[in-house]
Amino acid sequence: MKEIEFWFSIGSTYTYLSVTRIAEVARETGATFSWQPFSVRRIMREMDNVPFPPSKQVKVDYMWRDIERRAQDYGFTAKVPAPYPLGKFDLANCVAVLAMQEGWCEDYVRATYRRWFVDGQEAGSEPNLSQTLEEIGQNVARVLERAGDLDIEAAYVEQTDRAQRAGIFGSPSYIVDGEVFWGDDRLEDAVVWAKKSG
Amino acid sequence: MKEIEFWFSIGSTYTYLSVTRIAEVARETGATFSWQPFSVRRIMREMDNVPFPPSKQVKVDYMWRDIERRAQDYGFTAKVPAPYPLGKFDLANCVAVLAMQEGWCEDYVRATYRRWFVDGQEAGSEPNLSQTLEEIGQNVARVLERAGDLDIEAAYVEQTDRAQRAGIFGSPSYIVDGEVFWGDDRLEDAVVWAKKSG
Repeated sequence: MKEIEFWFSIGSTYTYLSVTRIAEVARETGATFSWQPFSVRRIMREMDNVPFPPSKQVKVDYMWRDIERRAQDYGFTAKVPAPYPLGKFDLANCVAVLAMQEGWCEDYVRATYRRWFVDGQEAGSEPNLSQTLEEIGQNVARVLERAGDLDIEAAYVEQTDRAQRAGIFGSPSYIVDGEVFWGDDRLEDAVVWAKKSG
Repeated sequence: MKEIEFWFSIGSTYTYLSVTRIAEVARETGATFSWQPFSVRRIMREMDNVPFPPSKQVKVDYMWRDIERRAQDYGFTAKVPAPYPLGKFDLANCVAVLAMQEGWCEDYVRATYRRWFVDGQEAGSEPNLSQTLEEIGQNVARVLERAGDLDIEAAYVEQTDRAQRAGIFGSPSYIVDGEVFWGDDRLEDAVVWAKKSG
């Protein structure tokens, strides 16, 4: 079965669902995922896509309720509305880029999302960031310094360029065998595609 | 099991999926649906929600591919891209309002969507509209005259007002027991909710 690329931005609300359940999906189906952080915010800005303007409050209200219901169906909790939008979006995701390079991406992203959606602590800001890093055994000072380095920023830009070239415009997205699947509710479709693709 | 309200606008692309598979879902699950046409276009305009501006072409391309894939998974065909947007959106839906009052709504909507998404004939326009009405045994001249009457227009406005008050902002949407479910991919969730609600 082909590996599935899991493209995400910390800051996306629906991404909470995928981040939290993806390990169980992998266990149950045998699917494997490579975690790929990028900036959905940059891509949406370039598309003039404003996710939640005031005129769309009814849609925002629906989104939180939908996330709450889906989380319950999956067997976990979402305290909604979670703090939104993130003040430190890029920092949260630059840490994920560093984590990807060093092999602790999944642990970091799942833990920071749990603090955000269960404990109500904004991802990318304090106390979420430091407490998450401590929880997963990373040195806070080292990570915060490295996450600001130019090579990490360059890798973040490159990840976002790659996502854009692949046709990604939202988070979470899955890519397998050249097919893009957008949204937590397409995770199972991506797994089926991976099985078909051998 | 509580009846599920199925809110739709002819002109919505994803609505093709629900319209085409809802009868089978009803058969398999025992769910019942009341078909409720409304103007998603009016509601989106009032939300400043432009579904497919040029800056979002990548999202449009994804949408067609997603619909094509989902239709295949469900076991039917979608020839994409279908003609879009509809030139006669309101006429297509006023005929649906009349059909709702007279009891032939599901037959009309399914047939006009099939001609739109399989034969490439725009819904609400000729030859789709007349051929659809003939196919389902309706007198074309009578229906076209009635669909333009003031009471049908008023009922269309009232349907849209009801949808808006219920928190609907997109098509297809399902309402059961006060819960709104948006999107063809939430049809199964609505059925589960209907079963829980007794």
